[in-house]
Formats: sequence, structure tokens, C-alpha cells
Amino acid sequence: MKAAVWHGAKDIRIEEVNLKPLASDEVTIKVAYAGICGSDLHEYQEGPVLIPTTFPDPLTNEAAPIVLGHEFSGVVEAVGPDVYDFQVGDHVAVNPAITKRESPDDVDVYDGYSFIGLSKDGGLAPYANVSVQNLYHLPQTFSLKSAAVMEPAAVAVQAVKEADLAFGQTVVIFGAGPIGVLLAEVARAAGASRIVVVDLAEVRLQKALEMGATDTVNASQVVDVEQKIAQILPDGVDASFEVAGVQETFDQAVAVTKPRGFVVVVSIFPQPIRLDIRELMNAGVRIATSIAYSRQTFQQTVDLVTNGQLKVEPLITSEIRLADFLKKGLLPLIDNPSEEKILVNLTKSK
Amino acid sequence: MKAAVWHGAKDIRIEEVNLKPLASDEVTIKVAYAGICGSDLHEYQEGPVLIPTTFPDPLTNEAAPIVLGHEFSGVVEAVGPDVYDFQVGDHVAVNPAITKRESPDDVDVYDGYSFIGLSKDGGLAPYANVSVQNLYHLPQTFSLKSAAVMEPAAVAVQAVKEADLAFGQTVVIFGAGPIGVLLAEVARAAGASRIVVVDLAEVRLQKALEMGATDTVNASQVVDVEQKIAQILPDGVDASFEVAGVQETFDQAVAVTKPRGFVVVVSIFPQPIRLDIRELMNAGVRIATSIAYSRQTFQQTVDLVTNGQLKVEPLITSEIRLADFLKKGLLPLIDNPSEEKILVNLTKSK
Repeated sequence: MKAAVWHGAKDIRIEEVNLKPLASDEVTIKVAYAGICGSDLHEYQEGPVLIPTTFPDPLTNEAAPIVLGHEFSGVVEAVGPDVYDFQVGDHVAVNPAITKRESPDDVDVYDGYSFIGLSKDGGLAPYANVSVQNLYHLPQTFSLKSAAVMEPAAVAVQAVKEADLAFGQTVVIFGAGPIGVLLAEVARAAGASRIVVVDLAEVRLQKALEMGATDTVNASQVVDVEQKIAQILPDGVDASFEVAGVQETFDQAVAVTKPRGFVVVVSIFPQPIRLDIRELMNAGVRIATSIAYSRQTFQQTVDLVTNGQLKVEPLITSEIRLADFLKKGLLPLIDNPSEEKILVNLTKSK
Repeated sequence: MKAAVWHGAKDIRIEEVNLKPLASDEVTIKVAYAGICGSDLHEYQEGPVLIPTTFPDPLTNEAAPIVLGHEFSGVVEAVGPDVYDFQVGDHVAVNPAITKRESPDDVDVYDGYSFIGLSKDGGLAPYANVSVQNLYHLPQTFSLKSAAVMEPAAVAVQAVKEADLAFGQTVVIFGAGPIGVLLAEVARAAGASRIVVVDLAEVRLQKALEMGATDTVNASQVVDVEQKIAQILPDGVDASFEVAGVQETFDQAVAVTKPRGFVVVVSIFPQPIRLDIRELMNAGVRIATSIAYSRQTFQQTVDLVTNGQLKVEPLITSEIRLADFLKKGLLPLIDNPSEEKILVNLTKSK
């Protein structure tokens, strides 16, 4: 089968690979859709970041070359001998996080983690073998396109949980990329009453409005972002989310958030940032981070979409074939802000 | 009357001053004891830090020269015409924080604050005029020495509250100065089951053991502080307190604390520090700060000492006369780690 295989930085090949043997607790998924993630882009541009190369990943025992794709959905095609909960024909979403499972679910990820599609062959291929531990049942009516964005949606659900947000509170989201606009939608589902999204690109702010934001601030068009937020929310910001990944937005998040409110950092900052403790003290703001999601959070995300409380499909801005992965998939994510989530339709890729 | 008056950096004079006129909502306190604080030292060494010089303080309308002393206790000597709750002879502790009182008590301080003894004449004098808003009733049996350390004790009580500590949890305190050892005692009163204090000075660690610590780590005598803490608390640290004020202990606090546990920064870092967001993400640790205390926290501190749940008197390492303020008070705090809290006995100073 043809798959998107990471060999090294700037070296992702659409090439013929064999599906690895099916383990006894795995199912073979006939992949429907697979999303392209910012981390795929980082692996392409400056990788390896998370992909194991010199040594096999301790949790998966695999190393590059790796079939990419950690955001995917599909239909069960075959089941291993120890699989009881899934049957051929079942629709599934994949939680790609592989953890040690030695600690309780809510803190499991802090013992270390790997991802299907980064440390184990993933879903940018017509078929993928996945352990039942990583599978979630979907109703047959659940859109398989929506199912392919359960992974980034779960990132947003986890981040909102980390903010200890209460019903009716107000939030500001710095950055309107895929996680930023999903955060707006998740905050809406969580009952936030005002959801302000800040970005430089108007097209992304429009997408945020489509996905739960109540207000936007175009940082390229206002003199003072903090002042503008204060005009929109004169009673203050209960929680803020840093998904732009720059010092300036981190500082703005600290400045606008209420005493004892959380600034939840979701961006992965490659370099240490500057933290002025005195500013933190005067603001009384707390800093939290969010990484991945618990298994419970992933199930809750599936349930929220199933129930219609969370609408994720507007996130999908393009649908492409696997053959166009680089040209119409990865590369537009670099310089076209109108692209949020590009899905590869694997049913058309054979 | 003779008072300790701040005129400028390296210029604190024990000199004759007049008590300012008594406002209608003030009482005149015959001061019993006044503690010397690290911030007094900063005002001496590199001030003005908080003391207003060029312009009067917006909350007090006063400016240097200022009578120092923001940790003091005493007996009511006279009352203004609008004072109903306090009578001549009442024993009182002073909450020196002056706030706008426009926001709820728990967040009031984040609107800005000034201090009696820094922005208004304080208690390093035989008499001080203080608004009833800053006074707390004490039982006649309440030690007036203990009462003089209610202010730093309230700092510690507020900091433990910011850690969201639950009964039976474990804490690590980095730094065994006055606030550090008070934190150990407050954590004990809050029901922490293991209280580890880290410092470089053995004499301070012994004081911490006297005041609530269950374990100590002498950072000058172990190769790896984090490893040593992990040996003492193999199940992890629920909350940690940074009261040493250096990058290294901040990083250690982040490293040892459990996912979703708080690192509460109590130290005032004069310069921005380096924050590695990836380390924070991998640890899952949250950062909070604590500044001053609410009025409720101050009352709770008085109550906890009244009830005997909090013992603060071991903090007091020396008692001096006002005439010896510099030589036996301020200066030993610079280079003698065996000094924690030095009280000036004002009843002997006339």
C-alpha cells in the first residue's frame, strides 16, 4: 500500500510499504480520513522532534522510517485473536497516545508518552494496525471526517479542563490556528459566556467566529491588544490560553487574566521564555500547561461530538488525496493562514 | 519620641519625631514589639523599593521620611472620635496592608497596596496611629511577642492557601528564612503529613525542624537535591514553595512537584527568570504566586495562634532595644543565618 513515510527532515515520501504484522490485541483499520498536524510539519521542517531515529522508541520499539498520521478515523477491517470489544465493520476514532499505564489516567501522560504516527506506523496510509487500547467506538452516524479531528479536539478539551473554567466565565485565546479555534468551540461547549480570540490573520479570526468565538481582536489592526480586550471584557478574563507560542502573547495572557485565573500554555515553546515573577505577583495569575489528553478526556470529546455539543467539522478547510500530501497538504500549512485542518481522504488514495 | 526613620538608602536614623495627628478612625497604639523584616533590609540596602520619595503614596498621601515597622503589636492608648470597636487597654495586632477596598477581600490586594511602616509611619516607635481597618483584637493572654509576627505568619498562611493543599499532602519548602520556617509551621497546621525544608544553612534547618518541618535537606551537603527529596518522598511532592529567590531553587521546585501540584513563588525575584515551558509541560506543574494576605487570612492567622494551632514564637531569635536597631537588628540579618526574626522591644526604648 502507498503511505506517507517520514525518513528525515525534508524527506517525507509517498511510497509503497507493507502493513506490519497484526498483534493479537490490535485491529486493522481501513483508514477513512487522516488529518495533518502542526507537529507533522515540524517533523518535516526541523525533525526529528518526537520521531525516534537512532534508537527505537521505548514504548513502541519502532524507529524511523515511520508512517505518519496521528489524527485518523476509519472502519475495522480485521481483528486480532485477543480482541473482543471491536468487530469488523465498527467505526472507530484513534487516540494515538501511547503511555506506560502505570499511573492513574489523569496523570498517566506525565510518566512519558509516544504517539502512533510518530513512534509507530500511523494513519496516513489506507490501512493501520492499532491496539484496542487506542480505539474509541463511534456510532455509525458519526461523521468519519469529524472523527479524524478527535485528536486535536481532545487537546482542546484537556486544555479547557486545565483552566478550571466555571460555567459562564470568560476566556481569551491567543492564536487562531487549529487548536485555537477548537479551544473557542470547546470553551463554548463548556459554557464560557464570552470567548475572545486574538490573531494576526483575519481569515483565522473569521473561522474562530464560525467555531464558538464571540469576539475577535486582530492584533495587526489594534494599537493595544490588552486595552482592546479590556474594552470587550471590562469585568476581566477568567482564563486565557496561549496557543500562539511567542513571548509577547504569553505576556499579554498574564496581563489580561484575573487574579487566580489560569493562563494555560498549550503551545510548545522550543526555547525558554522570560517570566517576570513580579508581574505574576501583581496580577495574581496562575500558569498551567496542557499536554495531550487523558483517555477519559478523549472519550468525553467523542461523546461531546456525538451529542452535538461540540461541532468540529468547520475546522476542516481542505480535503486532499495522499498523492498530494506534500504539495496540497503539508506545504500550504506553512504559508496559507486560511488553511486550518487539511484532511487526507484515504479511501481515494489506493 | 525616638523612632527608626528611613531617609534614604543606608540612611536610617534613630531620631526624635512627633506622632502625626490622630485621624478620627485611628487609635494610638502603645507599641510593645516590632519585628524587622527582609523588606526593611532591602529598603536600607537598595531602597527605595516600596517607600514613596518623589511623590506621596496614592493610598496614604505620605512620603519619606517614614517611620519604619510594619510588623508590630501593642496596646490601645487612645482612640479617635469615630472608633467604636476598640477601647483603651485593648491588645491589638496590626495588619499593615492598605488597599483600595474596591474589590472583594480575596482579590483586593491585586488592585494595588501600600504598607504602614513603608508608606505611612509604622511601629518602630513607642507609639503609632493606626486606622481601625488595620487592627485585630487579641485576647489579653495572647503573647504580644507572637502578635508582632502575625504579619509574616499571615504571608505564610496566604501562601499555603494559594497551594490548594489538601489534608495529609506533602510539601517541600525551598529556603528556611523567616517565611520559609513559618511556611513549615503553617503547612503543619494545615495538615501536611511530610514537610521537607531545603536550605544551605544548618542552623536554619534546625529552626525549621523546631517549627513544623519533618525533614530537611542541606543543599550544601548533598550532590543532588532533587534526588534527595525523591528519597524522602518517593510518592512525590504535592506542593512546593519557592522562598529562596534564585533560579536554581525555582527549577528544583518545578522538577520535584507532582503533576497539577502548585509551585507557589513567595520570593520577590528582582529580575525576570527563565521558564522552560517544555519542562513545565512534562512535569504538569502549575505556577502560582502569593503576595501579602487578605483581611480574612490575617484574622485566621490570629485565630490559629490564639487556638494554639500555630506556634510562631520560636521564630523570634533575638530581642533588642530601638537604640540598637542598626547594629543588633538590621545588620545581623545580612550575614548571620542564625537570626530569623529580631524583635525590637519598644517598651524598653523610651
